[in-house]
Amino acid sequence: MIEADVQVLQDEIKAMGDEIRSLKAEKADAALIKEKIAAMLEKKKLLGDGQTDQGKFVLKTAKGTRDYGPKSMAVRETVLKIVTDAFKRHGAETIDTPVFELREVLMGKYGEEGGKLVYDLQDQGGELLSLRYDLTVPFARYLAMNKITNIKRYHIAKVYRRDQPVMTRGRYREFYQCDFDIAGQYDLMIPEAECLKIVDEVLSKLEIGEFIVKLNHRFILEGMFAACGAGSDQFKTVCSSVDKLDKQPWIEIEEELIKEKGLTKENTEKLGQFVRLRESQLLIEFNPSMGNVELLDKLMEFEELAKNARLKKGVEELKVLVNYCSLFGVNSVRFDPSLARGLDYYTGAIYEAAVPKALEGINLETNGEEQKGLPVGVGSVAAGGRYDELVGNFMAPSGAKGKEKRQDVPCVGISFGIERLFAIMEAKMQIEQLPVRTTETEIFIASAQKNLLQERMKLCKTLWDEGFKAEFAYKANPKLLTQLQYCEDRLIPLVLIVGERELQEGVVKLRNVKTRAEQDIPLNELVPTLRATLSSL
Amino acid sequence: MIEADVQVLQDEIKAMGDEIRSLKAEKADAALIKEKIAAMLEKKKLLGDGQTDQGKFVLKTAKGTRDYGPKSMAVRETVLKIVTDAFKRHGAETIDTPVFELREVLMGKYGEEGGKLVYDLQDQGGELLSLRYDLTVPFARYLAMNKITNIKRYHIAKVYRRDQPVMTRGRYREFYQCDFDIAGQYDLMIPEAECLKIVDEVLSKLEIGEFIVKLNHRFILEGMFAACGAGSDQFKTVCSSVDKLDKQPWIEIEEELIKEKGLTKENTEKLGQFVRLRESQLLIEFNPSMGNVELLDKLMEFEELAKNARLKKGVEELKVLVNYCSLFGVNSVRFDPSLARGLDYYTGAIYEAAVPKALEGINLETNGEEQKGLPVGVGSVAAGGRYDELVGNFMAPSGAKGKEKRQDVPCVGISFGIERLFAIMEAKMQIEQLPVRTTETEIFIASAQKNLLQERMKLCKTLWDEGFKAEFAYKANPKLLTQLQYCEDRLIPLVLIVGERELQEGVVKLRNVKTRAEQDIPLNELVPTLRATLSSL
Repeated sequence: MIEADVQVLQDEIKAMGDEIRSLKAEKADAALIKEKIAAMLEKKKLLGDGQTDQGKFVLKTAKGTRDYGPKSMAVRETVLKIVTDAFKRHGAETIDTPVFELREVLMGKYGEEGGKLVYDLQDQGGELLSLRYDLTVPFARYLAMNKITNIKRYHIAKVYRRDQPVMTRGRYREFYQCDFDIAGQYDLMIPEAECLKIVDEVLSKLEIGEFIVKLNHRFILEGMFAACGAGSDQFKTVCSSVDKLDKQPWIEIEEELIKEKGLTKENTEKLGQFVRLRESQLLIEFNPSMGNVELLDKLMEFEELAKNARLKKGVEELKVLVNYCSLFGVNSVRFDPSLARGLDYYTGAIYEAAVPKALEGINLETNGEEQKGLPVGVGSVAAGGRYDELVGNFMAPSGAKGKEKRQDVPCVGISFGIERLFAIMEAKMQIEQLPVRTTETEIFIASAQKNLLQERMKLCKTLWDEGFKAEFAYKANPKLLTQLQYCEDRLIPLVLIVGERELQEGVVKLRNVKTRAEQDIPLNELVPTLRATLSSL
Repeated sequence: MIEADVQVLQDEIKAMGDEIRSLKAEKADAALIKEKIAAMLEKKKLLGDGQTDQGKFVLKTAKGTRDYGPKSMAVRETVLKIVTDAFKRHGAETIDTPVFELREVLMGKYGEEGGKLVYDLQDQGGELLSLRYDLTVPFARYLAMNKITNIKRYHIAKVYRRDQPVMTRGRYREFYQCDFDIAGQYDLMIPEAECLKIVDEVLSKLEIGEFIVKLNHRFILEGMFAACGAGSDQFKTVCSSVDKLDKQPWIEIEEELIKEKGLTKENTEKLGQFVRLRESQLLIEFNPSMGNVELLDKLMEFEELAKNARLKKGVEELKVLVNYCSLFGVNSVRFDPSLARGLDYYTGAIYEAAVPKALEGINLETNGEEQKGLPVGVGSVAAGGRYDELVGNFMAPSGAKGKEKRQDVPCVGISFGIERLFAIMEAKMQIEQLPVRTTETEIFIASAQKNLLQERMKLCKTLWDEGFKAEFAYKANPKLLTQLQYCEDRLIPLVLIVGERELQEGVVKLRNVKTRAEQDIPLNELVPTLRATLSSL
């Protein structure tokens, strides 16, 4: 059973209860209701006795949150190490900000939908506070407050969204973000290239399958939309339709654009030609690795687009970026005119990484049980872009006076959707049955006879003081078998066995847990012998 | 200026404003008010222009919280590494729990005073939630919920208390706790000894001066109080008086016990004899390192105490613990009958570490400016004890039925007051003017001439791919001096200088930033040369 199970079960049972109540209200087929109830009772059984006692409050974590037990933590630390190592390799500093901010700092930053998902703290007298929704706005607040115009920083911390949790797909109300951002006035596309290099390094090192990084530019989106009669006031709403293209067929998006967004049939068709350019070129040319520069040139072959100066600028900028990516050996980048991340604050290049084949080829059913907590359709695992105005907005939020004094701090960044990466890694390790070590203990001090507690303690002290990671049983007279079993369960590689005969002879027995080989080591040679043995493992 | 300054200043200014308003309300001396206003305006100047603009909302962090900038983070990571290394050396696993819990999980756990300091989340529909107040209650909830009876875990995370912040002394509303706990049925005092060994290791490695770990036992406190006519219902309130002995003279505590807690003069005197035993013995015998066992025996020489079976048991248990501490080489432990940590849930040994001489001998005034953010009187830096009933209470919170089914999970732990340790370390590094590196960059790729951006990028790619930590300037044509200055400021040890001549000759210039020595390295020998140079630094 994996860690999040209790929570997942409780949420599922609640959802099943809701469904049954509404079926009853609708006077649905009695047999169907009966079936649903039976299924719910089955689920309840899985929770165990304690949970169904009468008059007892149910111990659980808050909705949409979970504990990380030792195994999940071990996976999480593996993933986080790969990410932080990459950030450090690229010379980033790190900062931390409080988990809550003044409510006015967050207000109006996440659009209508996002704003609804912010957790507010209760007004207990004093300031009005909210939990952070992302790490980007606190970063911008930090820069503006401290008048910092120049920094390369990473920040790894939890953020909070009162979203409908889908925990089986790694969507929680409390989740980690790992952000890397470069703030400062620099030359065109160099910081962007470094962000994409980091994405490429991290996803390669995680070994979770092939990935691609889609690339687009706000100017290109604006130019395409303008050519199709959608003005700047429609930018966000058209983005949100177009962005669904990787999940829905174009025909449905076309319908939405005509019926809900008011585009004409003709313009929608035209837009389809633009945003599906990569697709159509692939079909015509059977060249899956079609060059990004070629594709950017193809876009410029459309007359309506070629005459748009802003779009042209976007195309030129992406060509520079694509060239820098080649210099950096980043081959995962694909210009994709349908990538339309709708966040208000982006002002230039945008990108999004996906792992389309993560967990493909792993037959989830062969495992004999429903794989709860596994990501089935894994979407974006990293995303970001350029946002040149967010910090300036903080420094001079309003008024003509503000505009005059305005100092922009151009920024570009990348944020890893680390929960999805955890979920992929957890599934991978579970399925490949890779052993997960939850401690780093190197040596266990055991004894075969009674009354040797003090000798075990003294030996353990020596090892700790020499920097070894060591444990012993907290019992006066533990059984040898129990002690050895503990080492096998915990994957502890070495055991030192203290015995009366050995003590008299001034030796201690060293046992290799895996091979079960044993040898006597003179006490005065113990430390160097252990160091040598550990480094040879 | 250290990191927390803006926040500290803002809070000080607010407090000064409050004081001025109340002085005005009291119609105090006009000259005094004028003086206070002048002082406040001086403070305001320190905040800089931006903060006093009209009609602009003030950018700040929430009251009692602060950002950690890169330098503070570097210090924080140094301290946290020492702590986590110790936890891992002792074989601990790690877990994480959500930042908020169901309100009912926290309710009634922190006494009347503590309960008032819990941050509640706003009721936005759904569950009632509160931010965690410590890591112990979430740990107990985790064990009870998952029916875990046996674990050695650490947890490092932020907790939240709506206390009056005293940030100049390291007291914040958002702060870190580093907890190590051992849950399980084990033999007497072995896990306690390991907790004290960890305290000893961590405080030694931090090198922040001499420290002592005070030791006492709930049974001893109960026995002493009972002998002085204070029943179990008065346990907590008498504890809270006695615990002030390291900050107040006994005469004041005596007065409090008589006037507020209702003890007789005679009984109070008797209690004074007990709890000041260490002190009086020190005076008589001039033996500052007086043995703990001797002192425990002295306590038993009081007739009223010797006949109390529970106290006797406490004394016997501490003797065992003191012996184990010697085996572990822990010499910092001092039995102190006045240590009276009043937390309800302790059931056995309790302990608390203090660094009485931290920052002593450092003349804070020689630095020429007021040392904000420095801890002046540093109190407890680590504390803990045994709590055998907290988890059982969660599993069966009430009712006779609960009692029958009750399964206790005995626990013992230690919690480091890590903010105080950060503050001491930050002060130490600032005063000793130790350089703080905020990045780990090993090599900077520079160029002396124009138009070499692509060459710098390619070289940097090679280094990253080989695992080196490397940076280059994000400008097409940066000045050499600017690049070298950056390396000196950031303490980057090596620079590779790319030049046209060198490229033609197939070499690159390697510069040691400190010695300024330069040499040409053939490109095909670059990677091994860099590895060798770095490992020799």
